[in-house]
Amino acid sequence: MAVVVMKFGGTSVADLDRIRNVARHVKREHDAGNSVAVVVSAMAGTTNQLVTWVNDASPRYDRREYDAVVATGEQITAGLLAIVLQDMGVNARSWQGWQIPVETNAAHGSARISHIDGEALRARVETGEVAVVTGFQGVEPAQGRIATLGRGGSDTSAVAIAVAVNADVCDIYTDVDGVYTTDPRIVPKARRLPKISYEEMLEMASLGSKVLQTRSVELAMVHRVRLRVLSSFTPPEEMAAVNLEGLANIGTIVTDEDEIVEQQVVSGIAYAKDEAKVTIVNVADKPGVAARIFGPLADASINVDMIVQNVASDGKRTDMTFTVQAAELSRTLDVLKAAEADIGEFEVRSSDDVAKISVIGIGMRSHAGVAAEMFKALAEKGINILAISTSEIKISVLIDAAYAELAVRTLHSMYGLDAA
Amino acid sequence: MAVVVMKFGGTSVADLDRIRNVARHVKREHDAGNSVAVVVSAMAGTTNQLVTWVNDASPRYDRREYDAVVATGEQITAGLLAIVLQDMGVNARSWQGWQIPVETNAAHGSARISHIDGEALRARVETGEVAVVTGFQGVEPAQGRIATLGRGGSDTSAVAIAVAVNADVCDIYTDVDGVYTTDPRIVPKARRLPKISYEEMLEMASLGSKVLQTRSVELAMVHRVRLRVLSSFTPPEEMAAVNLEGLANIGTIVTDEDEIVEQQVVSGIAYAKDEAKVTIVNVADKPGVAARIFGPLADASINVDMIVQNVASDGKRTDMTFTVQAAELSRTLDVLKAAEADIGEFEVRSSDDVAKISVIGIGMRSHAGVAAEMFKALAEKGINILAISTSEIKISVLIDAAYAELAVRTLHSMYGLDAA
Repeated sequence: MAVVVMKFGGTSVADLDRIRNVARHVKREHDAGNSVAVVVSAMAGTTNQLVTWVNDASPRYDRREYDAVVATGEQITAGLLAIVLQDMGVNARSWQGWQIPVETNAAHGSARISHIDGEALRARVETGEVAVVTGFQGVEPAQGRIATLGRGGSDTSAVAIAVAVNADVCDIYTDVDGVYTTDPRIVPKARRLPKISYEEMLEMASLGSKVLQTRSVELAMVHRVRLRVLSSFTPPEEMAAVNLEGLANIGTIVTDEDEIVEQQVVSGIAYAKDEAKVTIVNVADKPGVAARIFGPLADASINVDMIVQNVASDGKRTDMTFTVQAAELSRTLDVLKAAEADIGEFEVRSSDDVAKISVIGIGMRSHAGVAAEMFKALAEKGINILAISTSEIKISVLIDAAYAELAVRTLHSMYGLDAA
Repeated sequence: MAVVVMKFGGTSVADLDRIRNVARHVKREHDAGNSVAVVVSAMAGTTNQLVTWVNDASPRYDRREYDAVVATGEQITAGLLAIVLQDMGVNARSWQGWQIPVETNAAHGSARISHIDGEALRARVETGEVAVVTGFQGVEPAQGRIATLGRGGSDTSAVAIAVAVNADVCDIYTDVDGVYTTDPRIVPKARRLPKISYEEMLEMASLGSKVLQTRSVELAMVHRVRLRVLSSFTPPEEMAAVNLEGLANIGTIVTDEDEIVEQQVVSGIAYAKDEAKVTIVNVADKPGVAARIFGPLADASINVDMIVQNVASDGKRTDMTFTVQAAELSRTLDVLKAAEADIGEFEVRSSDDVAKISVIGIGMRSHAGVAAEMFKALAEKGINILAISTSEIKISVLIDAAYAELAVRTLHSMYGLDAA
């Protein structure tokens, strides 16, 4: 019999009817003879209410007190799910972060899990008692105060619990039934991927595909935790075919690339519309200018993504283009303005009317020409590329936002990802 | 400088504006140079919402999980109040039951506090940091699980914290400005009592005057904690005159009777309309019949209050009248029915159209004739007494509910309690 960690997000536990539905999924695993730990988020909407109260109390809130207030959301869900499970005849017990304990560092509001001693928890679930664990939270051991992991932290909690109890699998139940080759709302022919590698999932997640939190995928990759993405809205009785060996026509397994026998060159097309482009025109082309531009942005914790530099024909002045999150654009311009004395005179142009399109695939490593095919396909549709950035398994281009859907559909089809 | 415990109930922290008002009261004490621990309840309405969810999850809920869910209410208030205090420049920190820890027994849902080590807490508040403590909850040390004290438990938490930190005073802020000689809604001439003894307050509390929870008064009496009842709705700037020596024209001090120099024979008139009367007619008058009636009621945890037995003229059969809480009446009749075989044949009559009127006063101990005056005054108004029970400092009578207000007004006036 296996040790299974099941994680349910806020929409899956939004009210008592949905909590009952979750309990049926848990009972299914339990009745199959598995040892089960469940990780739950706050009921959808609860965390927002709590955060609003905290902000009303003071926009300059103390992060330790923010954590004490906001962590109550998961505490409520865990208690309610334990009660519902008991009512269904399943022996269950709720566990808060401080009770296990899930130890974190002191970065309140965006803490990282530092240690979980999973032995006692594993012993408990092996007796047949279901452990219902609060996601998103832990305790900072030095001060003994509650710490939360930041938005989406429950995925990370689930993987960390899976590592701690040495689980055979960590199933993440969400409101979608798996990871797709691209957004099905844009490309109706998008296909669910039965398997995807950690590396590909990381690129998908960080590029705006919101199925799994990036940190949870990193943690799963480091500890080789077998992750599965499933939908809590699939009726429990239709999930009898879910077993440890794989998934029968539902969900996506996120796993080591070695396990993926037939690797696609390209596994998916991601896009992000929340990018903004900043071009610094006619800045002096002398050593150190890039540091003088990007240093202050880094100091302000503004994440710069793509960077393109064009040398002017006279060799003395240059244009520098980069992208930031659209939400950070006005702060970016403020920081640049403040640094003008240091950078030297420049003009700045900016636009948040851009989109980033990314082609992702483990197979790229051993397959030449993927980028060239991409550029050619976009050129044939008259789509202008504003910037390019690449990694080992990803090629991203920045284009006019108006062409985003066309670009995604074109590439999805060109790389052979369309469903039959 | 003194150590002060301040307790604020649910209506005093019902929303952020009221929490800000509470913070101003706390800041006033803090700015006066006192060391302050604050005990808070859940925001009014929150606990009811949580209890509703638990009951929806399963009416046969596990009390440990009930506690885990319901305890979140105080946790939210404590964090928010700490944030608001910090925003006002007051160094503050929230503390949950398990963090102090407030240790309780394992009677989840109605736990009793077994131990609080207040040394660390006292050291902290003496540094000038305000401790904001969650009322109503603690932790059961053997299992490490959250335990709640039952409705109104925050008063008890406040007194227990006051005992643990050896506070100079425990101020209970409520939505009324003190303890009155009787309910001012019935008797407009009711007067606020500047002082009242623990014993009198206990009788008042257990007789339905809901200013303080009975257990908190008992605890204060045992440990000789100076309790004060104040209103959180009195503007903080009008409370400059509140100091440790006493109260200037606001509030009520609950204290040792030795401190009350000029004792009234009668301090107050309490009434309770939620009583029900049960008369068992024509039951055999033989040894053990009372045990056979009241044994099963005790087993069913039904609290019997007044008991009156009239022997019939033939000496063989008797009538037995007693009172229970009106809410327990139908359960009481069921228990009697089930015990009929054991009790012997009887008829039963019941009514929840009765009220209990009580006259309370420490002075009664040394003053004869108080009861006689009471019966005479009621008789003069044509009010029939259905049952009587007395203690050292209290005389209670059961009357028709229709006469309750008349009886209270009559007695209030007769004992010289009316305001000039």
